[in-house]
Amino acid sequence: MLKDAYTADVTPERDGEEVRLAGWVHEVRDLGGIKFVLLRDRTGIVQLTLPKQKVPKETFEKVPKLTKESVIRVEGTVQANEKAPGGVEVIPQRIEVLSESDTHLPLDPTGKVDADLDTRLDARVLDLRREEPQAIFKIRNVVTTAIREFLEERGFIEVHTPKIIASATEGGTELFPVVYFERDAYLAQSPQLYKQMLMAAGFERVYEIGPIFRAEEHNTRRHLNEAISVDIEMSFIESEEDVMRVLEELLAHVFRKVREECEKELEALDRELPELETPFERITYEETLDLLSEHGIEVEWGEDLPTEAERKLGEIFEEPFFITEWPRETRPFYTMAKDDEVTTAFDLMYQGLELASGAQREHRYDVLVRQIEEQGLSPEDFRHYLEAFKYGMPPHGGWGLGLERTLMTITGAENIREVTLFPRDRKRLHP
Amino acid sequence: MLKDAYTADVTPERDGEEVRLAGWVHEVRDLGGIKFVLLRDRTGIVQLTLPKQKVPKETFEKVPKLTKESVIRVEGTVQANEKAPGGVEVIPQRIEVLSESDTHLPLDPTGKVDADLDTRLDARVLDLRREEPQAIFKIRNVVTTAIREFLEERGFIEVHTPKIIASATEGGTELFPVVYFERDAYLAQSPQLYKQMLMAAGFERVYEIGPIFRAEEHNTRRHLNEAISVDIEMSFIESEEDVMRVLEELLAHVFRKVREECEKELEALDRELPELETPFERITYEETLDLLSEHGIEVEWGEDLPTEAERKLGEIFEEPFFITEWPRETRPFYTMAKDDEVTTAFDLMYQGLELASGAQREHRYDVLVRQIEEQGLSPEDFRHYLEAFKYGMPPHGGWGLGLERTLMTITGAENIREVTLFPRDRKRLHP
Repeated sequence: MLKDAYTADVTPERDGEEVRLAGWVHEVRDLGGIKFVLLRDRTGIVQLTLPKQKVPKETFEKVPKLTKESVIRVEGTVQANEKAPGGVEVIPQRIEVLSESDTHLPLDPTGKVDADLDTRLDARVLDLRREEPQAIFKIRNVVTTAIREFLEERGFIEVHTPKIIASATEGGTELFPVVYFERDAYLAQSPQLYKQMLMAAGFERVYEIGPIFRAEEHNTRRHLNEAISVDIEMSFIESEEDVMRVLEELLAHVFRKVREECEKELEALDRELPELETPFERITYEETLDLLSEHGIEVEWGEDLPTEAERKLGEIFEEPFFITEWPRETRPFYTMAKDDEVTTAFDLMYQGLELASGAQREHRYDVLVRQIEEQGLSPEDFRHYLEAFKYGMPPHGGWGLGLERTLMTITGAENIREVTLFPRDRKRLHP
Repeated sequence: MLKDAYTADVTPERDGEEVRLAGWVHEVRDLGGIKFVLLRDRTGIVQLTLPKQKVPKETFEKVPKLTKESVIRVEGTVQANEKAPGGVEVIPQRIEVLSESDTHLPLDPTGKVDADLDTRLDARVLDLRREEPQAIFKIRNVVTTAIREFLEERGFIEVHTPKIIASATEGGTELFPVVYFERDAYLAQSPQLYKQMLMAAGFERVYEIGPIFRAEEHNTRRHLNEAISVDIEMSFIESEEDVMRVLEELLAHVFRKVREECEKELEALDRELPELETPFERITYEETLDLLSEHGIEVEWGEDLPTEAERKLGEIFEEPFFITEWPRETRPFYTMAKDDEVTTAFDLMYQGLELASGAQREHRYDVLVRQIEEQGLSPEDFRHYLEAFKYGMPPHGGWGLGLERTLMTITGAENIREVTLFPRDRKRLHP
């Protein structure tokens, strides 16, 4: 490798040691007889100090020619120095330019110049060099690792279900068509039907963290057309409560892990994470409507909650909470009903965002066929799915959790695009 | 939950304890005064023993009506019994049918009746209940977990790059078109360009385990149109050797983990895994052609290796090995060349399969543009990608490893569809 240490490894304790570093030129300060270069890598920034007397002439003379954001490689000596940032600096013997940056930057990666989100996303590669995005995507990695760790410990096994599907998942709207050789196909809007089929296949507990695709027309701060969904499905549940418990414990675990492992990143984002107390509060859909009405927002029974209502609920509840017993007309055919009016479906809400949706599923073949028909769909279109219910299907349930929305609540990002490397939306297919 | 133990938890040591089990009726044996039910769940099979005198009449009388593959729930007492399989049985007090199976099964999940692969894939849900597929997908989970563990330990962070892309990754062939609102788009055939852009973004070490989509026309035992690729990219490498070392160590780690954690599953597959010794052998493309020629297979310089040649190499080499220094004309534009003829590209071969491909990438903007043009492509089509090379791009490299092919070598599966839950190929979009 061209380097043997990160800038974060350069500490006062290593005074006198030789290091090989590489990274980006964050800043250059030329005071004549002494020159400074701030060298940035993914772990932070270290100061290179070049006193004319102490470094080779060739190295010293290279500094004024360094352009910001060029990639350089440095061989030098660590020197503890109370006056240097972090109490340490590096006296370089050798500086090699590995890749010279154009001097006209479309965006300032030091973050000193504000840019609007569209400009930033257009120059996403430079934007991602800034401290805040770096913090966000380190947190994202800790979150997915924490999710896996939690689920694996509870016996869930990771699966990969197909993303190219022959028919609609939940009724045909909002699908992206794919030209699959001579046939029509679609991109999966969720792994729903497949994870259920895996319950019939005897897997008992599965999870998937993978892309979902939704051809939603509206372009909001909370929607992406391609997102990552965390999905679980589990068999032999007694009621939806069994999967709700997994969800609330998971979220509390994730918050705990991020607090423990991302102190520096949370600080960069100026963010304090609360300790989430479980169990979360549960209120029924009906109670939610009453509560909203008390706050001047009227929602008709059977309607989904409008954005305004979700926002208001985010003001009323400080902690995450569940809305339970959603009306039948708001939920897809595979949801198990509780009675003629309401279902076992629940949403997990936090900070005015719907983070997750789930339910106990209908596992009885006859009832399922009836529910498909009641929603105006054709059982024939779900032939392969329905087959799975004929030969012993355990009672089961699950949920889907939006990874990006969860990250919004953790990082404080106002726009879902901030927590996505290369977002896809109604208008954006680039970069 | 409807159960508090798996069948594997039922051991002779728990003699006398009450358990609640649930699973599938694997077999029923009715000897009149004593009846047996083999109860299967994802951990194995346990015998339920019903002596007429010892179980409630209602429970006893339920047994003859149980259809194979129905889902039942059992409350009973563990009884150590040397004559029972595994030295233990359960005397049920109560049996409840949760889901009755149709008696006409399109496939025999006990595995006693052989079926061809197409029939099995048509009835994949029942097929997956068999012992071998259950073993394969448990191993698959151990493999992905081992890969993540290995990479995270070495500082790689997991990323999610977009699967809907606006332009071709590597030159436009073999892409599935997507209708993205009013625009043309495609499914990503690899995360290649995006993981490189993340090197420009300063991530230094990333990995992704995600779907790739290839509209390859040919339908072979080694190809899928939708597969899972394990991709890494790392910055500040000195040469392609740096990423080859990560790859060989990773594969050795994965084999070790599977040997340690999947003893039972390997036994079910009648499979012994070797300990892989690193470093793997490296031979150049040119040496490979000579070697093949000695074995009577002539490949013209500049050609990819035909299947027959790969198979022959699998006979010659018992261990995994690298083919290095591929000719320029066999490799995409982003590959770094070594000279006018050969590149830094390598393939990892094992058991006659190409498991992985990688290289050092060309990080110099001007050279990259020239290489794009030399391949008859238009730099304008790669505008957003090329932008990333203008503002400081470190030397970097990486590889893509086919998860399913790796699993073929581990499980001994002859057909890639065996290691895929719901395979997608030229002819199959269902289930």
